[in-house]
Amino acid sequence: MNKYLLIIFILFAVSCSKVNEKGIENNPLPSWNEGSNKKAIMDFVTQTTQEGNPQFIPVEDRIAVFDNDGTLWCEQPLYVEMLYSKDAAETNNILEDFVISHTAVTLEYFDKKTQTWLDTAINTQFQQRYIDLTYQPMLELLQYLRNNQFKTFIVTGGSAMFVRNFSQQVYGIPSEQVIGTMFKANYKDNNISLDPDLWHNNDNAGKPEAIFNIIGKKPVLAFGNSDGDLEMLQWTSTHTLPNLALILHHTDNVREVAYDSLSSIGRLKNALIEAQLNDWIIVDMKRDFNQVFSFKTK
Amino acid sequence: MNKYLLIIFILFAVSCSKVNEKGIENNPLPSWNEGSNKKAIMDFVTQTTQEGNPQFIPVEDRIAVFDNDGTLWCEQPLYVEMLYSKDAAETNNILEDFVISHTAVTLEYFDKKTQTWLDTAINTQFQQRYIDLTYQPMLELLQYLRNNQFKTFIVTGGSAMFVRNFSQQVYGIPSEQVIGTMFKANYKDNNISLDPDLWHNNDNAGKPEAIFNIIGKKPVLAFGNSDGDLEMLQWTSTHTLPNLALILHHTDNVREVAYDSLSSIGRLKNALIEAQLNDWIIVDMKRDFNQVFSFKTK
Repeated sequence: MNKYLLIIFILFAVSCSKVNEKGIENNPLPSWNEGSNKKAIMDFVTQTTQEGNPQFIPVEDRIAVFDNDGTLWCEQPLYVEMLYSKDAAETNNILEDFVISHTAVTLEYFDKKTQTWLDTAINTQFQQRYIDLTYQPMLELLQYLRNNQFKTFIVTGGSAMFVRNFSQQVYGIPSEQVIGTMFKANYKDNNISLDPDLWHNNDNAGKPEAIFNIIGKKPVLAFGNSDGDLEMLQWTSTHTLPNLALILHHTDNVREVAYDSLSSIGRLKNALIEAQLNDWIIVDMKRDFNQVFSFKTK
Repeated sequence: MNKYLLIIFILFAVSCSKVNEKGIENNPLPSWNEGSNKKAIMDFVTQTTQEGNPQFIPVEDRIAVFDNDGTLWCEQPLYVEMLYSKDAAETNNILEDFVISHTAVTLEYFDKKTQTWLDTAINTQFQQRYIDLTYQPMLELLQYLRNNQFKTFIVTGGSAMFVRNFSQQVYGIPSEQVIGTMFKANYKDNNISLDPDLWHNNDNAGKPEAIFNIIGKKPVLAFGNSDGDLEMLQWTSTHTLPNLALILHHTDNVREVAYDSLSSIGRLKNALIEAQLNDWIIVDMKRDFNQVFSFKTK
């Protein structure tokens, strides 16, 4: 290659990468459509991270909590962890499957089996792996918050031990920032085993209770999608610091599944009423997301 | 000032600051005496953070856990939290004091009262505030580990809610990296209150059990000082990754208090035997610390 051409090419490549950086800087949420919800989220982040702004939140209080099923990834037609449990234990009772698949095996076996399953198991409606059915706009939001020194936590009704097997890879959230349902652990002879009894059921009131005991701080941002998240959203919205409560409303029957108050999975009824009464942000998947899933669509 | 003198002065100041930086870089643990224990700690950190070294530990697995009472700060003549409880509740029963002072008040009142107390209450033997009776070599170790991308956690037999009121200020450890004894929390009417019952007693086997459920990973470094830390040290020492189990042995009756197997506070008997059998690092306060406390001595 002619050396002048090479120099021009390098200059071009450098300027392109600068444009890209600038693009992401100016639009950190490219999969969110412009509108009042996107604006409210970005205004919140801008104002609370701007020193001297009356809305400023100190870094150590920038705690953001996210439900997982139906908020960060698809929960239809059934919670992914329940599908795993059915595959792994195969009784006729889904709760028994859940307990057996999680506690009747060693921790090493559970982690290995879960990871293999997640790497291969497919959602038949979308013909995609479950770990690729995460919501692209939510991944962008997690990253945007972390870029602004918010600490992002998952607070899931699912088990912490299941979600930890993909949270870092899929969401960039480390094991110790996953709060979930937990079995009673027993340490004996250098070894942890799990009782079939729950130590903590991380749903409804269990969510703020675990946040209090494990994080030790009230969050300033909470994002959920169902009645199981109501108490966590309520508690967050009573923070004396500026705060944001958000609900993802599944309104898109073409790109995903439309459901709310009548669904047995991720029912959204009381929390939607409360959100309307309290002016929480109701994210409308159909209207607010220009891309739904993280896998590449045509 | 003559401008040449000014320039010389600036050059001198800059070179001094560089010498200081270099000093801390070369000796990140200045309050530790040279010897096999300091060398073992520094070798561990150097080797496990050096890419390509067979001892290398990925960043996400660099979990380091520390007991608090007697490991990070002075626990004599009585655990500081018990002294607080006695002051705050004033029954004739120390366990009743503990429960009442923590659960019979609002969370806001507890935090405020604790902070005021910690700011003023004095250890009579040393004539220092309790929060100034932290061990300087341990503060340096925490910082050294964090500088090498270890995540530092407190895993204390004390209550998480008490320790969180000084962990950031005193140890640089945020609220969500404090695991402790926890009361059963109840969420109701936008509010958390605490039952007098414990949700979790974070001592002995309770330590690895909580680490499993809350961090979700086995630590690669554990540091304790009493039999209550034995299970946490044992579990850490069975990690498949390189690991370090350390015990602080209180051997200095001049600068602190010498105690071990006969003490009712922070008894160290079985864990010392196990440490000797397993070649864990036994830090000898008298021999290994050239400065004990973080307050400035003459």
